[in-house]
Amino acid sequence: MPSMITFPSDPLPSWRSGEVRDAILSFLERVTTPGSSDWLPPPERIAVLDNDGTLWPEHPVPFQAAFAFDELRRRLPEEPQLEADPMVQAALAGDLAPLLAGPHFEGLLRLVALTHADMGTEIFRDAVEAWLASARHPRFECPYDTLTYAPMQELLALLRACEFRSFIVSGGGVDFMRVWVERVYGIPPERVVGSCGLTRFELRDGVPHLLKTLDHLFVNDGSGKPAGIHQFIGRRPVFCCGNSDGDLAMLQYTTIANPQPSLGLLVHHTDAEREYAYDAHSTSTGRLVAALAQAPDRGWLVADMARDWSRVFTEPVVAI
Amino acid sequence: MPSMITFPSDPLPSWRSGEVRDAILSFLERVTTPGSSDWLPPPERIAVLDNDGTLWPEHPVPFQAAFAFDELRRRLPEEPQLEADPMVQAALAGDLAPLLAGPHFEGLLRLVALTHADMGTEIFRDAVEAWLASARHPRFECPYDTLTYAPMQELLALLRACEFRSFIVSGGGVDFMRVWVERVYGIPPERVVGSCGLTRFELRDGVPHLLKTLDHLFVNDGSGKPAGIHQFIGRRPVFCCGNSDGDLAMLQYTTIANPQPSLGLLVHHTDAEREYAYDAHSTSTGRLVAALAQAPDRGWLVADMARDWSRVFTEPVVAI
Repeated sequence: MPSMITFPSDPLPSWRSGEVRDAILSFLERVTTPGSSDWLPPPERIAVLDNDGTLWPEHPVPFQAAFAFDELRRRLPEEPQLEADPMVQAALAGDLAPLLAGPHFEGLLRLVALTHADMGTEIFRDAVEAWLASARHPRFECPYDTLTYAPMQELLALLRACEFRSFIVSGGGVDFMRVWVERVYGIPPERVVGSCGLTRFELRDGVPHLLKTLDHLFVNDGSGKPAGIHQFIGRRPVFCCGNSDGDLAMLQYTTIANPQPSLGLLVHHTDAEREYAYDAHSTSTGRLVAALAQAPDRGWLVADMARDWSRVFTEPVVAI
Repeated sequence: MPSMITFPSDPLPSWRSGEVRDAILSFLERVTTPGSSDWLPPPERIAVLDNDGTLWPEHPVPFQAAFAFDELRRRLPEEPQLEADPMVQAALAGDLAPLLAGPHFEGLLRLVALTHADMGTEIFRDAVEAWLASARHPRFECPYDTLTYAPMQELLALLRACEFRSFIVSGGGVDFMRVWVERVYGIPPERVVGSCGLTRFELRDGVPHLLKTLDHLFVNDGSGKPAGIHQFIGRRPVFCCGNSDGDLAMLQYTTIANPQPSLGLLVHHTDAEREYAYDAHSTSTGRLVAALAQAPDRGWLVADMARDWSRVFTEPVVAI
């Protein structure tokens, strides 16, 4: 006999009372209440959540892009030839636009090739750790990994209490995220679905070595997200949260014609004072038009950051 | 303060007393005993196990190949043009040799293309389920999924009791395995690493559809296994079990120069009476030469099925 989940007395303290908070709590109560027609067996409780713009900010540039820019700056004294590359010049200027131009983000891929490939997985992991320890967000002046959203951390904790298995499903690189997800979100590395290339295994001087490459590069964005979910998780989710049109296909896959009860949730960036405000027009990633337009018909919840969140960040940060 | 694991009084009843059983139990006790210098924090307790020949048989042909052969037989009346294909002819004759010939298993890939691609993921899943419900193993005359090894099921249960997270890391297709792994091994679908192609997501008449393709085909065998482990799990395992040279790289990755305590285990098929006997010469997959030769120097345990297993199958089966 499945047991009843004991909900915390104040399960989502950074969410203001209202339609969105009520609907989240109602859904979680229904699917965890034994005997409810919406009850889901625990193995079926799969939640998928985007990362950039959903669990932490993506402005002024996605944090992984900031990492890549800083890596180039760090390497430039030793590798001055890098500076001849127009995409490196854009990166050094912190200018995302040329990198995101072109139908296949050729500029961004060039940057990824320079900073995320042709190196051992351990070298890359150490570089990400060193960067997180030293880099500071330009506006909030604190380490990037302290900038997670309090309401979303509370949602992750509540999903865990409800015996959900939460997966991060992000366009970001899986090797970049796995360095810190367990410490920052309590999510183990195998529950991260992201963009990735193959690694190449060999023994070097008798010691195992995994070389990062861009072979078979898989971009986990847009219609790639349901494909990534199928490939890595192999089960259809029942809870999905995103914040951009890159999450549209994942929201559709989770909620349309799903025989299980399901919930879709969009985070809408409406709070320029405490964070950032953008949707149709974004100077970074995170354009949100089609998913927002479909939300009412699809029954997706839209969390309005200014309206629905009493607190934005887990740490007390002061915007400059 | 981490708590002590309570070991069952008879944790591996189908393993005969001896060096291999003792070494497995000793390893699991050391890594789970708080205060032991070999103690592993539970998040680090990652076990990887091959499937074909390790958790269930791979003779007279790997069970997934038997599925493919039977699928062709089932479809032939409706698609008689299939019979003109020499690889289909080999499959219909149950002849694995032409399919495994060639440096890149071109014949096998042709068969995979015919039986594992250009169809929706749900159609494929239903086909696997229907096959499992009706097909019988030619020698043991019982459903294929009742032929798991009792000693390995006991090992999986013990690993679970020791707070390990066990992953199946198999050359088999991930979509094929995920249909039954949870029911048969108690392992959820997201803990299966296997060969796979990309799926393509689209809305068909407004309904989500995932089409299986062979794009970016990833073959999770040989040096592909450490690559697959890195891509899907993202953490180095500390326990590895396989039975063939296809598992060699995975055994090396798990045990060589691993800063954590680790264990490698090979299942050696030595029991023609109760199961099959093969290593250097196999009429199916599962050739075992290099891994067996390296085992003594590497400290890998070799479970001799005839010597170390008092029982082979979970169900009472009678070989014909």
